[in-house]
Amino acid sequence: MKIRFATSNPHKVAEANEAGREFGVEFEQIRVDYPEIRAEDVEDVAKDGAQYVFGKTKSAVIVEDTGLYIEALNGFPGAFSAFVHRKIGSDGILKLMDGVENRAAKFRSAIGWRDENGVKIFSGEVEGEINSEKRGKEGFGYDPIFVPKGQKKTFAEDFRMKNKVSHRRQAFEKFCKWVAGA
Amino acid sequence: MKIRFATSNPHKVAEANEAGREFGVEFEQIRVDYPEIRAEDVEDVAKDGAQYVFGKTKSAVIVEDTGLYIEALNGFPGAFSAFVHRKIGSDGILKLMDGVENRAAKFRSAIGWRDENGVKIFSGEVEGEINSEKRGKEGFGYDPIFVPKGQKKTFAEDFRMKNKVSHRRQAFEKFCKWVAGA
Repeated sequence: MKIRFATSNPHKVAEANEAGREFGVEFEQIRVDYPEIRAEDVEDVAKDGAQYVFGKTKSAVIVEDTGLYIEALNGFPGAFSAFVHRKIGSDGILKLMDGVENRAAKFRSAIGWRDENGVKIFSGEVEGEINSEKRGKEGFGYDPIFVPKGQKKTFAEDFRMKNKVSHRRQAFEKFCKWVAGA
Repeated sequence: MKIRFATSNPHKVAEANEAGREFGVEFEQIRVDYPEIRAEDVEDVAKDGAQYVFGKTKSAVIVEDTGLYIEALNGFPGAFSAFVHRKIGSDGILKLMDGVENRAAKFRSAIGWRDENGVKIFSGEVEGEINSEKRGKEGFGYDPIFVPKGQKKTFAEDFRMKNKVSHRRQAFEKFCKWVAGA
């Protein structure tokens, strides 16, 4: 079963396909720009994005949005994570967290699915901590500074671990289970 | 002449009225929520917002959007200034700028006007520097850390100065001149 995934990020498609394998679901990247609303919840962004792309292409599609929510920064950068990463990167986040004791953070992912029957949302979340320095070269975005609960390595140091426990993995498993009718 | 100004920020209405006085233009705050798109230009946000509110209320209206663009941070926080301020405040910006020599920044403001004839945009800009600490109690947002070119005080220390030279003042003067047919 092939699913169209509207994104400009090939890393996300690779992670989706890792999750889809056991369900026989394959994700195919399509590039359709959609305006992202300034919502603070990834669910709202994913839902709106999927509605928009479906409206434009008239075919079933998913859109995914991810946010890193840092407790000591009131949830910053949240649903604006990609924008903030483009501007100040993981180094900017480390600078903001310099001397901050509470390192708690979570990644949240939401998939918006839209077909002729309407829209559905699938979410995933992983708790963890902001590391004191960047470590590792795999993955993308904030992976080098995020250590999930119960682990000692960052997502960027251990991509296999990321692909087992991540926010995105969880959201895609829920979606695949549902779409494959498993 | 009365102009409807869709905003949740009474400070902006006060600044608009300062600018409007000499043109006989008075701004009246209306509260209509509009979804802000994730554009990086304040012009796009103001334009979309004005279109949306006009569509909802069927009466001529302005929407204003402002961004602080810091050179050393690749234009961060830009059109996301309000969100970033809610999350990490001026203190977060000062932390990001700690030890950074290039303090150059600019404020940009855009007004979107929408009536039955379509949409028009009016922009204003002021260059300056990010101060090394917060100073002053007036104004709002990033006013305590912004010193405009040629001045020694922050916008928050000298509100009368802000009202003469600010990005918003310039945008509103252009708008008032045009709308009053002066």
